[in-house]
Amino acid sequence: MVGNVAFIGLGVMGYPMAGHLAAAGFDVTVYNRTTSRAERWCEEHAGHLQDTPAAAAAGADVVLCCVGNDDDVREVTLGAQGAFEGMGDNAIFIDHTTASANVARELAAAATQRGFHFLDAPVSGGQAGAENGQLTIMVGGDEEIFARATPVLDCYAKSAKLLGPVGAGQLTKMANQICIAGVLQGLSEALHFARLAGLDGAAVVDVISGGAAQSWQMDNRSQTMLEDQFEFGFAVNWMRKDLAITLAEARRNGARLPLTALVDQFYADVQEMGGGRWDTSSLIRRLDPPR
Amino acid sequence: MVGNVAFIGLGVMGYPMAGHLAAAGFDVTVYNRTTSRAERWCEEHAGHLQDTPAAAAAGADVVLCCVGNDDDVREVTLGAQGAFEGMGDNAIFIDHTTASANVARELAAAATQRGFHFLDAPVSGGQAGAENGQLTIMVGGDEEIFARATPVLDCYAKSAKLLGPVGAGQLTKMANQICIAGVLQGLSEALHFARLAGLDGAAVVDVISGGAAQSWQMDNRSQTMLEDQFEFGFAVNWMRKDLAITLAEARRNGARLPLTALVDQFYADVQEMGGGRWDTSSLIRRLDPPR
Repeated sequence: MVGNVAFIGLGVMGYPMAGHLAAAGFDVTVYNRTTSRAERWCEEHAGHLQDTPAAAAAGADVVLCCVGNDDDVREVTLGAQGAFEGMGDNAIFIDHTTASANVARELAAAATQRGFHFLDAPVSGGQAGAENGQLTIMVGGDEEIFARATPVLDCYAKSAKLLGPVGAGQLTKMANQICIAGVLQGLSEALHFARLAGLDGAAVVDVISGGAAQSWQMDNRSQTMLEDQFEFGFAVNWMRKDLAITLAEARRNGARLPLTALVDQFYADVQEMGGGRWDTSSLIRRLDPPR
Repeated sequence: MVGNVAFIGLGVMGYPMAGHLAAAGFDVTVYNRTTSRAERWCEEHAGHLQDTPAAAAAGADVVLCCVGNDDDVREVTLGAQGAFEGMGDNAIFIDHTTASANVARELAAAATQRGFHFLDAPVSGGQAGAENGQLTIMVGGDEEIFARATPVLDCYAKSAKLLGPVGAGQLTKMANQICIAGVLQGLSEALHFARLAGLDGAAVVDVISGGAAQSWQMDNRSQTMLEDQFEFGFAVNWMRKDLAITLAEARRNGARLPLTALVDQFYADVQEMGGGRWDTSSLIRRLDPPR
């Protein structure tokens, strides 16, 4: 039975995720780069604070991590005072960061060498999903280890699925982002076209969302796109990080992703407009500039 | 009250649509370029056959039309023995063809001049929608005329909406096709990437279809895409016709549609592969050639 867990990275996602673990009765030890945020978390959840990832990981059956990018993941695992220094025999390290499949493979190899286990487990569902405990978790690793981790993941998962060996979670997340890139650029062009054609965008969406043009993005983002609101949601800067990982992986495996590469460049335009923190649906702002 | 209707064009869509009108109790007169098909329809539905559009339209309160493209529409309306020669005073001509907004405006002007009315009313929902009477109908024209036409359209509509003046139906259909182009190219790249990444495509779809990457196309086409099946659905040739109309309209109204233009070229590749009659989801075949 799993009892002691550690959580590294109490950002917008990690903070509520770790909260669900505490609420479920796990004994949670945390580490966060900004200590004041970790202190607040410990006060709210009666958790334990440590000032290095290694110290947080020591004695934990499962160590979870949700940080920014490949470099951040490497730092909190393999870096000085990194979690891998503190991991116990047969413990499990689970990385929720959206990172490259390469870093997953590299960390899994290091974990094996040291006698513990690694799962890559990027999530989707955003801040709302983290807060409501309704994340979709895409996991790569061994079946037996995944089974052992499931009671922990279930604390904040709507669905947690094993997709294959280490790296498969990250690769599935990349496929997810590719779909979103296509959907959002198509939707942006459609709403831009509708405006210039003199149509009522909301009426157009109302009609076409009942058929073959429907998408989650249309159902959940077209209204805010029409209202020119982008100060929420999944930021363009994060999307560009994910697309960079995706395009690098495609170079490795030979996949041809012309649309994905193009939309990545369009997101660069949005960053240039000052929209790095806008929601990914802000692609339309390249076509219909801010009013 | 509407009693007598005429239907011009008994193709894959028009044949079942006209059937719903007969089933609802309308007295239906038909015209079709290939007479044998019209004869079969009349036998099945106790309808009346005429050998020119003008003769079919004579005496009808509402004349409906569903043919191939702009040229076909012009021929059956303004051509020799065209429907516009037979239309009665105050009757309504409804064009279900996906055609340009220009042809809609041109025909509406001609109708007004001759003392009858015109609605553009392209549909979505495909052959299945036509057969089940569950089409989405996007209408452009006058409100009063739309109200008069509604009892007829309701015979095969899941939803019939007035989107604005003449042309607005066609323009809305174009926005629909723009969305589909983006969704399908994104989905194609994602499934192609997943295959080369060694993932199980069906498992990937199962996981990501619960979130922000979801689309009608993912729900309804990813399985057949993974099975390399494209001998059904909405043909690439028709999609190219629709995208040509859309891109021409964008040149007129100034809309920038980089993704739509690119995907149109990708569909040209599919045609080159011999896939003109394949379903639009066959975009993936450019990336994962036929097995």
